[in-house]
This record gives sequence, structure tokens and C-alpha cells, in this order.
Amino acid sequence: MLPFSSSSTAPRVGLIGFGAFGQLIARNLAAHMQVVVHDPAQPPKAPARVRFSTLEDACSCPLVILAVPVSSISDVCQRIASLLAVGATVMDVGSVKLRPMQDMETHLPAHVNILGSHPLFGPQSAKDGLAGHKIALCPQRGRTHWRIAAALRSLFGLQVIWTTAEDHDREVATVQGLTHLIAQTLSQILPEKLRMTTSSFDHLLEARRMVSADAPAVLDAILRDNPFAAEVRADFLSRAAQLAAGPAPIEKGPRQMAGL
Amino acid sequence: MLPFSSSSTAPRVGLIGFGAFGQLIARNLAAHMQVVVHDPAQPPKAPARVRFSTLEDACSCPLVILAVPVSSISDVCQRIASLLAVGATVMDVGSVKLRPMQDMETHLPAHVNILGSHPLFGPQSAKDGLAGHKIALCPQRGRTHWRIAAALRSLFGLQVIWTTAEDHDREVATVQGLTHLIAQTLSQILPEKLRMTTSSFDHLLEARRMVSADAPAVLDAILRDNPFAAEVRADFLSRAAQLAAGPAPIEKGPRQMAGL
Repeated sequence: MLPFSSSSTAPRVGLIGFGAFGQLIARNLAAHMQVVVHDPAQPPKAPARVRFSTLEDACSCPLVILAVPVSSISDVCQRIASLLAVGATVMDVGSVKLRPMQDMETHLPAHVNILGSHPLFGPQSAKDGLAGHKIALCPQRGRTHWRIAAALRSLFGLQVIWTTAEDHDREVATVQGLTHLIAQTLSQILPEKLRMTTSSFDHLLEARRMVSADAPAVLDAILRDNPFAAEVRADFLSRAAQLAAGPAPIEKGPRQMAGL
Repeated sequence: MLPFSSSSTAPRVGLIGFGAFGQLIARNLAAHMQVVVHDPAQPPKAPARVRFSTLEDACSCPLVILAVPVSSISDVCQRIASLLAVGATVMDVGSVKLRPMQDMETHLPAHVNILGSHPLFGPQSAKDGLAGHKIALCPQRGRTHWRIAAALRSLFGLQVIWTTAEDHDREVATVQGLTHLIAQTLSQILPEKLRMTTSSFDHLLEARRMVSADAPAVLDAILRDNPFAAEVRADFLSRAAQLAAGPAPIEKGPRQMAGL
């Protein structure tokens, strides 16, 4: 379980950022915790059990989740560094881990714990709940990650994958890098309506639909901020171009009725 | 319903070719018809209600289905031309339609009907049955296609899509051309095991799994024999390369907490 605050029986969690992913987090956390959200662009009305507040208030929680773009982590860490409580844990949720974890390490004071995380789901895939989805955790500083992992498992049914920032970024360059490259390309070239679809093509369309709800900043992180993504994309494109250019025509065997 | 033969109450259907797709057809037809199969590479034992026989016997049926590679249609039609009964219908099942339908038109005698078809399913996607799957039909010669379409709907629950060879090939160049290009490329570059997968990536893997059972000749037809496939592939590759090269970094808006 997460640490309880002194003022209530339900643990307090600070959430910095209330974009599409911040809202998904808030909705799920609110069943078990008091969620204190700070976002300059907050909507006029907070959802049930979610409270909008000042940056200072959100940063006073024992756990502070940064649901901001990877490219903003450095700025946000510098801004919140002096507001964090001794022993608090700061956790990001970025789609890459090397860069934001370096930023957190550089800018957060020595008295806070740091945990890198990448929830491997989004507003589309987790619209019916988090159970069964995966989250990658990269412990960086302190030992609170054990308690947090236990809560992610027991309260939300998440599958925790322990990894390092580098191993994460290498693997996700393939998984998310290719999914988004393929999905974005399909979005650009597919006609409005197709009648003669196959089951396998329907799976491509479903992959495209699921990632189409991701914020532009998510795509940006996946395609640009992952240091291994360019290499994976180049490999995919070069193999695909080879296949498209094609081998010599296949020798016809007996299965192909040449001997009929 | 299909026309009944004189020797039995169940209609006789000739099936030329017993590869992966021919076997799928035979298994489904056998519940309703007598299936007379000819294939030089036939297995030692016929499945229930399926009978292996001579080419002459198979060609004596009122409906003759050619389950052979697109590249063999011309040869097969020349071979069977003199064996077909007056008023018989010849139907192919190729993944492209322009070329095999031209071959059938050229080589089959004037006294047979010709129907081009493309079942939009395969051994993987239809392993639990045909109901709900799609089949594209391109009527070419005669009027037996109405009866055949009615039987495909009522006996097998198939969704019939009427189209022309050219419209079919244009649309399928996108649907199957891209599915197979993406699936084959993923097969070449993906590592053995990935832990940090997302739901959308799982859909890509499922698309890949489904087409991996297709025979090499099917891939050949989709990638090489469709006159529109090269253009679609080139478009996909050029758009993907543009995305991979990337636009200038996105301007950061308020959602990205720059003003925090």
C-alpha cells in the first residue's frame, strides 16, 4: 500500500498534469486514494474524488506522479524540486525512460525517491480498466518502488515488469516505435471506406484506432525521444523496401499444379 | 442451391487443387455436397465425404472450383477446357482477379459459365467456420452466379460482395498488399521474445500470425500478380519514410506544461 497522509485515512497522491493520460490515471487512482491534481490548463470541474489545487499542494503528497510530456520533465523537476517533502517519491509515466530519468536524477533533491515508470496502456486500451495491463518500472533512487509495485498489482491488477531505462528504451523502440510508424502511415494512405477487408487487416485497423487517441506529445516521445527508435524504423523500412522490390519469382512446385 | 447431379441427391462439386486453401474449401463443402477432388499431390487418404479422383471426373461436375495458384490458372484452364460439361460453371478463388479472369475467358470454351471469386479468409481466420466471413464475386460469363451466391450465403453464412476484377484488385492491393508487406517485414525484424508489449502491438502480432499460414503462392499473387500492389507499397514506404525522417519538433502548447 502507498503511504497514508496524516490528514485522512486514504493516501494522498499528487498528480502533475491533466492531459489524456493524467485523466486516465486520476480516474483509476480516485477509487483508492485522494488525488490532488495540478495543471495550469485544468478543466472547470474536477471529477469525483479528484481535487484541483496548487502546485505546492500536489507536491506535498508522499507520492507525486508526473504526467507531463517527456520533453517537459526537466522543466517540471526544476520547478518542483524545492516543494517536495523529505522521503517523497517522484514517478514519471513517460513512453521513454533514459532521458526523463536522467532529468529527474539531475534536478530532484537527494531527499526524494525516484521511480521511472511506463504504463504500457493508454486511454483507448485501458478504457474498461487497468486489470491485466502492463507497467514497466525502472527503480532509480530509494526503495519505495517495492511498496508502489505491490499497490499497482493489488489495487489495479497491473502486471509489473522490472527493467532498466536502457533495456526499456531498446525494446519499446521496437514495440511502440513500429506500432506508431505503421499506424500513422496507414492513417495517411487508407481510403475512407474499404469493403473487401480481411480479418488480419481488421487487426491493423484496430491497432491504428487504439493509438489514434494518443496525444501528439506521446507520438513525439516515441518517435523522437527514444534514442533507439531511428535505428528500428530504418531497419523496418529497409526490410520492407526489399520485400516490396521482391525476390526473383518463386520456383513453382507440385503444390502449384505445374505438373497437372 | 447448387445444381444436383443425376447420380445422387447431394450436389457434386469438382475441386482442382488440394493445397491449404483447397483443403479448407473441401472441409466446408463436404457438409453439404459431394466433393470430387483432383490434385496430383493428393494425400494418401481422403477426409470424410471427400473423394479423390481423376481430372476427368472432377471436371464432369456442374461446378468446378480451381483452387490453384493464380500463376497456374492459364495452364489448368487449357488442360481442362475439353473436359468440362455444357453449362458447367468454373470458379477460381485467387487473391487477384484481373489476370486469372482473363486467363479463364481466353481458355475456357464458350459453353461454360465463368465466375471469379476471392474468399477474403484463409486457413487461420476461418479455422472455426466460414460464417460472417466475406467473399468477393466477379461475374464473368453466364448467370449461374446468382444461384452460387445464394448457396454461399444460405449454406455457409458468407457475406457476398459483388465487384469487378479491376475494382477488386485496386482495393485488395491496399488491404492484402499492406497487410502482407507489414506482416512479412515484422516477421523478419522482430526479436524472439518481447516483454513490454502493448495492446495495439498485440494486434500487429495477431495480423502477422494470421497471414503466416498463407502459402508462398498466395503471397506471390498478392505482392506480384496484383497490378496495383506496387503503387500501394511505394506509397506506404514513402509516407512511412517521411514520418520516420520526422517533422520539425512540435511547438509545445499549454497541455505540455511549458507554462507551469
